Amino acid sequence: MNDRAERVAEPYRSVRAATEALAAPLSPEDCALQSMPDASPVKWHLAHTSWFFETFVLERAEPGFRPHHPAFRFLFNSYYQSVGPQYSRPDRGLLSRPALAEVLDYRAAVDERVAVLLARGVADETLAVVELGLHHEQQHQELILTDVKHLFGANPLRPAYRALPAPPRTEVAPLRFVAFDEGLCELGHAGPGFAFDNEGPRHPAFVPPFALASRAATNGEYLAFVLDGGYERPELWLSDGFAWKEAEGVRAPLYWEERDGEWTTLTLGGPRPLRPEEPVVHVSFYEAAAYAAWADARLPTEAEWEVAAASAPVEGNFVESGRLHPAPAPAEPGLGQLFGDVWEWTRSDYAPYPGYAPGAGALGEYNGKFMCNQRVLRGGSCVSPRSHLRATYRNFFPPTARWQFSGVRLARDA
Amino acid sequence: MNDRAERVAEPYRSVRAATEALAAPLSPEDCALQSMPDASPVKWHLAHTSWFFETFVLERAEPGFRPHHPAFRFLFNSYYQSVGPQYSRPDRGLLSRPALAEVLDYRAAVDERVAVLLARGVADETLAVVELGLHHEQQHQELILTDVKHLFGANPLRPAYRALPAPPRTEVAPLRFVAFDEGLCELGHAGPGFAFDNEGPRHPAFVPPFALASRAATNGEYLAFVLDGGYERPELWLSDGFAWKEAEGVRAPLYWEERDGEWTTLTLGGPRPLRPEEPVVHVSFYEAAAYAAWADARLPTEAEWEVAAASAPVEGNFVESGRLHPAPAPAEPGLGQLFGDVWEWTRSDYAPYPGYAPGAGALGEYNGKFMCNQRVLRGGSCVSPRSHLRATYRNFFPPTARWQFSGVRLARDA
Amino acid sequence: MNDRAERVAEPYRSVRAATEALAAPLSPEDCALQSMPDASPVKWHLAHTSWFFETFVLERAEPGFRPHHPAFRFLFNSYYQSVGPQYSRPDRGLLSRPALAEVLDYRAAVDERVAVLLARGVADETLAVVELGLHHEQQHQELILTDVKHLFGANPLRPAYRALPAPPRTEVAPLRFVAFDEGLCELGHAGPGFAFDNEGPRHPAFVPPFALASRAATNGEYLAFVLDGGYERPELWLSDGFAWKEAEGVRAPLYWEERDGEWTTLTLGGPRPLRPEEPVVHVSFYEAAAYAAWADARLPTEAEWEVAAASAPVEGNFVESGRLHPAPAPAEPGLGQLFGDVWEWTRSDYAPYPGYAPGAGALGEYNGKFMCNQRVLRGGSCVSPRSHLRATYRNFFPPTARWQFSGVRLARDA
Amino acid sequence: MNDRAERVAEPYRSVRAATEALAAPLSPEDCALQSMPDASPVKWHLAHTSWFFETFVLERAEPGFRPHHPAFRFLFNSYYQSVGPQYSRPDRGLLSRPALAEVLDYRAAVDERVAVLLARGVADETLAVVELGLHHEQQHQELILTDVKHLFGANPLRPAYRALPAPPRTEVAPLRFVAFDEGLCELGHAGPGFAFDNEGPRHPAFVPPFALASRAATNGEYLAFVLDGGYERPELWLSDGFAWKEAEGVRAPLYWEERDGEWTTLTLGGPRPLRPEEPVVHVSFYEAAAYAAWADARLPTEAEWEVAAASAPVEGNFVESGRLHPAPAPAEPGLGQLFGDVWEWTRSDYAPYPGYAPGAGALGEYNGKFMCNQRVLRGGSCVSPRSHLRATYRNFFPPTARWQFSGVRLARDA
Repeated sequence: MNDRAERVAEPYRSVRAATEALAAPLSPEDCALQSMPDASPVKWHLAHTSWFFETFVLERAEPGFRPHHPAFRFLFNSYYQSVGPQYSRPDRGLLSRPALAEVLDYRAAVDERVAVLLARGVADETLAVVELGLHHEQQHQELILTDVKHLFGANPLRPAYRALPAPPRTEVAPLRFVAFDEGLCELGHAGPGFAFDNEGPRHPAFVPPFALASRAATNGEYLAFVLDGGYERPELWLSDGFAWKEAEGVRAPLYWEERDGEWTTLTLGGPRPLRPEEPVVHVSFYEAAAYAAWADARLPTEAEWEVAAASAPVEGNFVESGRLHPAPAPAEPGLGQLFGDVWEWTRSDYAPYPGYAPGAGALGEYNGKFMCNQRVLRGGSCVSPRSHLRATYRNFFPPTARWQFSGVRLARDA
Repeated sequence: MNDRAERVAEPYRSVRAATEALAAPLSPEDCALQSMPDASPVKWHLAHTSWFFETFVLERAEPGFRPHHPAFRFLFNSYYQSVGPQYSRPDRGLLSRPALAEVLDYRAAVDERVAVLLARGVADETLAVVELGLHHEQQHQELILTDVKHLFGANPLRPAYRALPAPPRTEVAPLRFVAFDEGLCELGHAGPGFAFDNEGPRHPAFVPPFALASRAATNGEYLAFVLDGGYERPELWLSDGFAWKEAEGVRAPLYWEERDGEWTTLTLGGPRPLRPEEPVVHVSFYEAAAYAAWADARLPTEAEWEVAAASAPVEGNFVESGRLHPAPAPAEPGLGQLFGDVWEWTRSDYAPYPGYAPGAGALGEYNGKFMCNQRVLRGGSCVSPRSHLRATYRNFFPPTARWQFSGVRLARDA
Repeated sequence: MNDRAERVAEPYRSVRAATEALAAPLSPEDCALQSMPDASPVKWHLAHTSWFFETFVLERAEPGFRPHHPAFRFLFNSYYQSVGPQYSRPDRGLLSRPALAEVLDYRAAVDERVAVLLARGVADETLAVVELGLHHEQQHQELILTDVKHLFGANPLRPAYRALPAPPRTEVAPLRFVAFDEGLCELGHAGPGFAFDNEGPRHPAFVPPFALASRAATNGEYLAFVLDGGYERPELWLSDGFAWKEAEGVRAPLYWEERDGEWTTLTLGGPRPLRPEEPVVHVSFYEAAAYAAWADARLPTEAEWEVAAASAPVEGNFVESGRLHPAPAPAEPGLGQLFGDVWEWTRSDYAPYPGYAPGAGALGEYNGKFMCNQRVLRGGSCVSPRSHLRATYRNFFPPTARWQFSGVRLARDA
Repeated sequence: MNDRAERVAEPYRSVRAATEALAAPLSPEDCALQSMPDASPVKWHLAHTSWFFETFVLERAEPGFRPHHPAFRFLFNSYYQSVGPQYSRPDRGLLSRPALAEVLDYRAAVDERVAVLLARGVADETLAVVELGLHHEQQHQELILTDVKHLFGANPLRPAYRALPAPPRTEVAPLRFVAFDEGLCELGHAGPGFAFDNEGPRHPAFVPPFALASRAATNGEYLAFVLDGGYERPELWLSDGFAWKEAEGVRAPLYWEERDGEWTTLTLGGPRPLRPEEPVVHVSFYEAAAYAAWADARLPTEAEWEVAAASAPVEGNFVESGRLHPAPAPAEPGLGQLFGDVWEWTRSDYAPYPGYAPGAGALGEYNGKFMCNQRVLRGGSCVSPRSHLRATYRNFFPPTARWQFSGVRLARDA
């Protein structure tokens, strides 16, 4: 085993094990169901992440490669047209077979074969794909939790993923705005370390003066918007957003419920009274933008966010805390909660950076072809792995998406 | 235990056990999924049939009744508006909880309580509802098999429910038409024995002269229609049927697949080459009617069918044969295959008989409110329990339904 | 000109002129628009009825036939697959060309050519098609009025087709039920005179004892059903009907509006306060059936209706009265309002009579292929031409249709 | 009349007259129909542009203002929630009334009242709204032509709006790329003269080095992409774009038709063989982006386009040329066809410029609320009025829109 391969083998084991640990509290039935086309069954996530290594690592680098199961290439291909046709995404919840146990066997078999490959030593190019596969798997770790939360949210029994620790009883400091000067900045990833291709190339950009809120908006602040009739005031909304809200009957963030004036929300530990000091979460871009307009502010651009976060440490409430829910912002000077708790919607369209070009072949499909109709989110959430995040990281979802742990940080012109 | 209660306790045990035996080959994942809004998860069938006894027997007759689980009244109510609101039918596949094991516990608890009730002795009215519940459960036994077949049909792995016995190698006799004279007949159930309310009242009807085919149409006969361009000839189709076919892209019966001129079909034992001598199955009313037009015939009315079947013994290929697939018609004089193998589409709208009125209360919703937009099928199928069938039995489905074991018997004016 | 041709030439002129008289109050814009897929622009009706004579009379019988315009064969074919493809029905409102004036020219040219043909003398077979074309045209006369009413109903300006005479101020007699004995009856048309093929063959049918209401249900009676919460009580509705009502947000008959407890309705003369003594109109089959259940009655079968109407004179409020709206039932013994005022929904599925077979060729598509998913209505309406109606006439629409002048006559078992 | 009012009165007359001149070749029927929800009837455009002046000028500034017709406020409000509810956009084609003549009367009455107002002298604020109204009306002039083209495109008779001059027979020069250096540029409108609020504020932006194609892509170039299977190669497409193409069955630009290898397209003068030297037009953003990928290029950003066009004269093929169709690029050094012929899709999301905030009140709804899910187009088309265009002008449409005169200018990194 060459040195670099050794340096990958250990993270490989730990990332793969972390995925399975996330699935451990779930029954085979929990793992098989799909609550909407945008979400996938947990079992599918477990299989697809293995398919990624099988297809992009083993098939390319393993001598005498043979597929684990001939149908899996089709069943567990997410969207890689270059690899071949894909099983219909909205039908992922129709696959009672392979059973969860068979998928876990698939995982074990792939892990075994990757370990052998790494032990033998592999080309740097292959190692780079293994590393990409681990960051890819971390994305699916987050999706496992958001997707199973959505599934449980559709069940009148309101099951819990597992018991959660009692949330801290903290007051949050009043919102402040922190000002930044204008300037010609460098944005995007410049190494060292891993980054997705969409984080580069690093490039200059002129950023006008702006101010960012000191922390994420809270449930209490957002509830004031709701109670002020914010969902009924078209002047606060983007036109498409208002139409979406009307069509879907949206009147509050996803998972909020009101009965006799008492509000509850859903956590991965089950339903709970709404805590005003916690960050608001599970809002769409449209709701975030309307809330910002109501608060006499706006959403930040991703450039502003990155300028502000460039030198901040990656600290916060991540999946490793075990909270699995956003926590109140600790009192601290400057900007807090940049990383973790909630993904922060930006007003920026998910677009290629200047000079960006997707790579050739299937892995070129990873990011580039989605650069349309999506908004960038920054900073990570309470269900993101810490090692997955950095200041240049660009998450992206359509403006209607609500089932991610997405929240709001306000910005203003300065 | 009074005598009549005793006479019900034994069928109760055997019908309930038969349902569980049908679910036995399936995994918890198989039992949780729903392949389309018209089909339900096996787990839901297991629970709903227990809900029927809990709601209509225990809640009415058990002293000090308390519900097994407060949410089940809502979750497992199919369509009884008088009982209360119902969990959304197309979302039955989102319920990973209660787990299959919990549903089996629910069944056991209900069975125990019903047994105690019967042992104590109950009013005739209650016994009648128990008896209705058993025939209701037999309907769901058939649905368990059709629904799991549909689920497996959506899975590219094409799983088998269980291994099936090899089909017999028989030739079928050429189709004959058996003529019947016109006459003023009595139709509908007149007892003794159980019947659904839609089978009565028995009433006179004038039936013109007609002829019925000696057996169900076969795959070979239907394939000739397909190969003759039958699906592309609008003059053979009802207008709505042709539009349905175009919109859905239907080109052959459900589960048929063609590759390089070879046809296969799906059975509960997995895919198999199409056998020309077996009855064609999984056709919609629209396909059945178009095939009949092509064959210079028509579908029978339900009156014609009942006149022809009135004195025939209830014999044939039912679920008890273990074949779980239609079998070739044995050579016999007169009309064969009236019962079992495939449900036979009639041209009759599912309408109330003269003098019919649905009962008051929730059980009045059993049949009457569905008497619109459906066609009657007669005779039972290879997955019907034999004791569930009789000459007056009226099954009904919308003209587009294909996932039942539905086939074709031709008729002609005589 | 042979005698029979002469006997057709005069009705031809008067029926064709009547159609144009109906369009006379309308602007070219009124005639071009289409308010829903089920309705057609008036201009399309004017053209299609001419297409019928051009295609089925001139093209078959005129020496050296040449089409008036090569595109019209496609544009104005309604649904005759045997004639060729058809311009998309929901897009009929996209045809600003040909202009109304060109369509009127088309009519004149066809009329001229038919007149020449008839003057020359033609085969009986051709004369029969001319006669069919005239009855066909009368059907479209009624549709011109229902379709333009629907168009005007979608316009907030609520235009009037033309000023209508003031409705009579009459009280209606209380509803009575008139009983009929059971019996083996002959149903269907047996000549002499014209009938559509779906009215035959005449055939025996056993009709159980029944009673029919003495007149159509009134607005006042129906309003009591509305105010009694009839639209919110699922036990009164067919299952599909309740789902339809919920999905469409239906709360009253089409064209009814309520403001501050005052009800208005729309007539071809514009909006007007609802008059309790007038027959209720513009209800779907589902509403009619629910109302009947609420009134402790049911809808009649078409056999019952025909038995009751067989010897009644075809008298009533037809298009010739110029009222263009249903009028209160005059006081009279026995059954009133059988013909005219409102089409009466029956509970009968639109099905072929025993021995019925559609003819060969395109004209065989006239009726037979629609015998599915429709309910029969009987008796004609205030916008039907009197000469178009008879006791055996079978009108048919899907159970959701409301834009026809459709109302309710109650029936009961006797 | 104060001086400034005088300076507005003349353009008011000429712009309003130009609108009516565009409608002059059309019949009342042509003006009443709506071919899709995104398009409006010509009559509606004529009324809505008058509504704009009535609502935002007369109602605010005319002493004793009374509405021309009380229902028009509702009927002809496009999307101004602050003004009140709006008649349903997809139903604009259901309004046969008011008649075209009445709408022309409405225009005349508004014009008369605006003239009186201007003659009396008005506040600068009012004049600014009049000026805005004229630019607004010019936008609708372009829409009148695109919408009637779409309507005629749905009519199998393929009517012509009017006879067009024969297109010039020119060869186009081979495509060159013109390089631009990177730099910190100023973008956006800085006066003097009118601009929409979305063109400001003027602001610095860093633009990396780039190259722009010397002219728009031609039909011949685009046809090579089509014939090379460009519509079947997912690797060239954005993911949403490929799914859109599949769902809609798109295989070539809108209005292209192929028969036996011969391609035709539709112009406002009727169908015509496709001319390879003319700019390709009626492509969506998705098609433009896929074509660019195939051509080893990309779409420009709007910053790049504006930098390149900043000092170019506004010259080209506009509505005033009377061609009403894109013309081949004249041979010229540098960049040609920047203005006129076809709107050029950029890759830029339609977003607010730094410091942009929509104004308060209804006119604040003009642009800001649409800044989501749209792409910017630049440069104007062959149906834009010349005085309407400038280098900072930002047009915007969803990425699926094809019925505008939208084309492609390629860009590359330099």
